[in-house]
Amino acid sequence: MLGDDRYPGPPPPYPHDPGLDFCYDSACPPHGQLPWSDQSPSGDREMRDDHISFMRTVKAFREYIKYAMSSREARLASFNKFNNEYREVLCIDLEATFGKYAKCIEANSEFFECICDASKGLFDAYWPNGTTVTPEEVPPPTPLDIDKVFSTLRQFVRDWSAEGAAERDAVYKPMLQTLEEHFPDVSRRSGVQILVPGAGLCRLVVELALRGFSAQGNEFSYHMLIAAHYIQNHVVAPGQHTIFPYVDNTCNLVERDHQFVELNIPDLCASEEVGRRSQQPYSFGELSMVAGDFTEVYAKGSQLKKWNAVVTCFFIDTAHNIVEYIKILYNLLVPGGIWVNCGPLLYHFAGNAEGDSIELSLSEVLTVAMRFGFVVRRDPILIDTTYTNNYRSMKQLLYRCAFFVLQRPPVDTREAA
Amino acid sequence: MLGDDRYPGPPPPYPHDPGLDFCYDSACPPHGQLPWSDQSPSGDREMRDDHISFMRTVKAFREYIKYAMSSREARLASFNKFNNEYREVLCIDLEATFGKYAKCIEANSEFFECICDASKGLFDAYWPNGTTVTPEEVPPPTPLDIDKVFSTLRQFVRDWSAEGAAERDAVYKPMLQTLEEHFPDVSRRSGVQILVPGAGLCRLVVELALRGFSAQGNEFSYHMLIAAHYIQNHVVAPGQHTIFPYVDNTCNLVERDHQFVELNIPDLCASEEVGRRSQQPYSFGELSMVAGDFTEVYAKGSQLKKWNAVVTCFFIDTAHNIVEYIKILYNLLVPGGIWVNCGPLLYHFAGNAEGDSIELSLSEVLTVAMRFGFVVRRDPILIDTTYTNNYRSMKQLLYRCAFFVLQRPPVDTREAA
Repeated sequence: MLGDDRYPGPPPPYPHDPGLDFCYDSACPPHGQLPWSDQSPSGDREMRDDHISFMRTVKAFREYIKYAMSSREARLASFNKFNNEYREVLCIDLEATFGKYAKCIEANSEFFECICDASKGLFDAYWPNGTTVTPEEVPPPTPLDIDKVFSTLRQFVRDWSAEGAAERDAVYKPMLQTLEEHFPDVSRRSGVQILVPGAGLCRLVVELALRGFSAQGNEFSYHMLIAAHYIQNHVVAPGQHTIFPYVDNTCNLVERDHQFVELNIPDLCASEEVGRRSQQPYSFGELSMVAGDFTEVYAKGSQLKKWNAVVTCFFIDTAHNIVEYIKILYNLLVPGGIWVNCGPLLYHFAGNAEGDSIELSLSEVLTVAMRFGFVVRRDPILIDTTYTNNYRSMKQLLYRCAFFVLQRPPVDTREAA
Repeated sequence: MLGDDRYPGPPPPYPHDPGLDFCYDSACPPHGQLPWSDQSPSGDREMRDDHISFMRTVKAFREYIKYAMSSREARLASFNKFNNEYREVLCIDLEATFGKYAKCIEANSEFFECICDASKGLFDAYWPNGTTVTPEEVPPPTPLDIDKVFSTLRQFVRDWSAEGAAERDAVYKPMLQTLEEHFPDVSRRSGVQILVPGAGLCRLVVELALRGFSAQGNEFSYHMLIAAHYIQNHVVAPGQHTIFPYVDNTCNLVERDHQFVELNIPDLCASEEVGRRSQQPYSFGELSMVAGDFTEVYAKGSQLKKWNAVVTCFFIDTAHNIVEYIKILYNLLVPGGIWVNCGPLLYHFAGNAEGDSIELSLSEVLTVAMRFGFVVRRDPILIDTTYTNNYRSMKQLLYRCAFFVLQRPPVDTREAA
């Protein structure tokens, strides 16, 4: 059955640890289609659209260097218009500074090239029959595609660098502790199925597997899927890559050097950990990744009462309709299963002309959850934290994340559907 | 001389305190033109453009209600698409909630109407010969014009409400203390000329006048000029207006009530304070307001060595070229005069395709200032604060503001120009 196909990991550039048992579930390609089971003309068209989206994202990663260099050029051009008086007072060695600036962009681009090289394996896993889309048919990346490439670099800091530890600890730690306390018997955790919607670059999913849980990440964004695939399946050693995540930010600097901060990623190499854990009393948990829209993939009958826990971190506000999300979350859980949440309520579609957006307050989210049948295991608290933040900057975006734990009653048999 | 014309304050709706001695300097209409002294065809055209900009801004304030109501409609429409199941779990009384929502918008709109009604006096002060522009010729407000109306409401919270006191105190207090300590003799403060570029809604300027200083605000934005004119010259009592500054924000609410927070403004009535201070040993300082672009108005020869202090709060990053700003600031000061700064380094034109943007780090700003001749009176510290922030929200934007005091050397005779 196609739905159980597992993506065995791609060929080199980086060899695989033979013990690597986390992989991609290719049952649901990213935008919710099952293209190879639907060969109707409209199915063909949708599949082609998905191919093009994937390839356009890869193109955006490859074109990072072009856009980053062009911003650099514009900044340099402003300085180059200086008259002599301004030149004399300027304390910046433009050649040295903008030379360094270019080198940092090149280093980031090399990292993105590795991600792009590895993306073919992921494409083949989603669409084993290949594609009829030729490279010439792939349109240029949209400005949003390019923006997301820049922000993906910051996501790597958050999820896969030592510098991101404080940010991760603020929200991942209380969530992981909750799950460890709720499922204290380590030897039985491989039987505990935990779902992480909006898994992003997958650090939380890996942390769950490190603790012995069977964890599945779900993600919609091709940027995240392609980048997460690389960091999990292709990186073979901690600190293998050097990135300069803040090189594109020239505002709110206290010191010029803060633009050129150098970070080595990942701080933890997933494949290495798999080997290490195999010598311990419990092994690395099973890890899978499902691409696609949460409401399409997890509202399916096959998903009902399948999960012991669902962990949502900076996720629930990605909903067009949060009431629908809450209903799906309820139905996913086995009776007695828990929903652990930590995040703000940004509501990504608020004010968006395309499509609806339902914006509930935190209190209303909890009330709706209780009306669907949830009971409160842990009252909400607000945890202050940043998100892909440069702590050196004079501008800090702080979220007061709602952390709460709800439970589907152990004896509950109803379905919200 | 036109440059010394003072705007005596408009007629009712609100009567003036006869002791009111702060007023508008109409020497420089907002966009730097001196229209009535330049009757060339291009000068006429530029003057007409200025008139249209002014009138378009007034139109934007008047059309707030249309745009706010339309956002409300879109939000309600999303809820109205709910099926029965969702309706049953929804804990919001839609009629009551959206009824309240409409009432709050109407109250905000009434406040804006008062501002618009008073704007005619300001227009007449800038252009005493009136205009040939007919209302029909004024184009619809741009989306940016409308956005600024929404943010002006939040600016009122910052500058003129009790709720804004904490935010103001964080940055205004250290700046005011510095000036009070530097000019300790209250009886002589009326001779101390202080300039506040980027005065916005002018609370800082009024606070300086309250302490006896002779203070001048400078502002470019018609939104700020029109709104500041009203709050200073037309409001007769504290708490005269009730506004609902957060009604348009439905994201990151902990409680629904936070959307409907009701504030009374102003917390301090400038005209009342003028009367009160007249019975004290020192009176309310002279207060004036100059409309126009900082680099155009204050690079003039008539401004050289005219000011005992310049106070920049969330201002220096409005520069296209911060090096030019620093040079102008130096030249404005009398030898021994001080520059007091508090703010981040956002650089409003960064990444803007139109026009240059020079983005220096804090260290570089200070080095450039010293190369122009400034000496450090007080080393920079970083003060954490918000800006037009709703403290109840789950999203908090925090600035680490650079607070420093520089001085033009007392025996310095050079000019950076």
